[in-house]
Amino acid sequence: MSEKTQIHRHPELGSEDRGVIDAILDNGFLCHVAYLRDTRPVVIPTLYVRDGDRILLHGSPASGIMRAVKRGSPLSIGVTHVDGVVVARSGFESSINYRSVVIHGVGRALDGPEHRTALDRIVEGLIPGRLADVRPPTPKELRKTSVIAVSLADASAKISDGPPEDEAEDLGSGVWAGIVPVTIAYGSPVAAPDLEPGLEIPDYLTRFRSS
Amino acid sequence: MSEKTQIHRHPELGSEDRGVIDAILDNGFLCHVAYLRDTRPVVIPTLYVRDGDRILLHGSPASGIMRAVKRGSPLSIGVTHVDGVVVARSGFESSINYRSVVIHGVGRALDGPEHRTALDRIVEGLIPGRLADVRPPTPKELRKTSVIAVSLADASAKISDGPPEDEAEDLGSGVWAGIVPVTIAYGSPVAAPDLEPGLEIPDYLTRFRSS
Repeated sequence: MSEKTQIHRHPELGSEDRGVIDAILDNGFLCHVAYLRDTRPVVIPTLYVRDGDRILLHGSPASGIMRAVKRGSPLSIGVTHVDGVVVARSGFESSINYRSVVIHGVGRALDGPEHRTALDRIVEGLIPGRLADVRPPTPKELRKTSVIAVSLADASAKISDGPPEDEAEDLGSGVWAGIVPVTIAYGSPVAAPDLEPGLEIPDYLTRFRSS
Repeated sequence: MSEKTQIHRHPELGSEDRGVIDAILDNGFLCHVAYLRDTRPVVIPTLYVRDGDRILLHGSPASGIMRAVKRGSPLSIGVTHVDGVVVARSGFESSINYRSVVIHGVGRALDGPEHRTALDRIVEGLIPGRLADVRPPTPKELRKTSVIAVSLADASAKISDGPPEDEAEDLGSGVWAGIVPVTIAYGSPVAAPDLEPGLEIPDYLTRFRSS
């Protein structure tokens, strides 16, 4: 209803500043990837991590996305963080505040040492600080995990922020207007049922992703 | 990188139960829609609301998605809620817990009374309780807002839940394992700077989406 929610038609909200794009990407770990299956688009949620000028995705070699990459399918990847619900005086101006990145590209399958290094980056990307605590992947795990890199060369960011922008004639109408803030809350870590007693929660989990 | 994160290759996690699908959809308002532009997939974030056996999307008639629908483009729509970060003893089993729905279909443009009713549903879907407080859309706003319906006939849900599932040989390795819970937090509403004094925050915003 608000024009701000139709973010794909608001080029003035766009940003190609790499710092902005990197910050949005580094703030999350879940993306939605679209690829072609025959001539149809298919979207799936999957994890990602930014690695310099590219993002890394991983999955089973048999997964839809990895098979699509092997066929040379173009990819479109979206990452969106919701920051608030914009409660405007009209339905039309009601909307959300958000930060999003959309990337277009193709996937390049990694192998050898590059594949191995990327897997470490993926662990550390999801759970910063974790890499030092986990054992290296086994040969079987390496075989079962394909990794692709997608360049950020064709990436754009869109950000919508601020209070409702109501029409002048709607002001003073006696209807409450404002923002409901939306945030992601990371709770206190919960130990696995099979965890041996006496192990302390690592520091990097008690302050999870709160940089 | 746990197998559980590669949710597209885990049919055993799948659910076609409509109650499950509806509950996941009703828990959110942001989706990622993939459509075809020429022969490439394009993914964009946009708002949605479930309306019975279909979901409704809206946007400018000039938006990429509305033009794609007019061309008859197939759509793929993903909705994902992250419930936790699975901190396993190995990188391979580390992952996220999530609930997701993927819908495949085509968009049908709504017009006339159906279009008008859908806009009300969209307002109420984003901000439950709001419809009674906002004025009706103007003719200009109606013209500027296309609405499409996509059937839930081809929708599937995937859910990953529970503690890490480490290999037997990784248990007792002295490495902490468990879950970091992830939730969406809706904060206290913040009044618009141009709000007239003395207006109280409506009840439906102080308990926003906490049904």
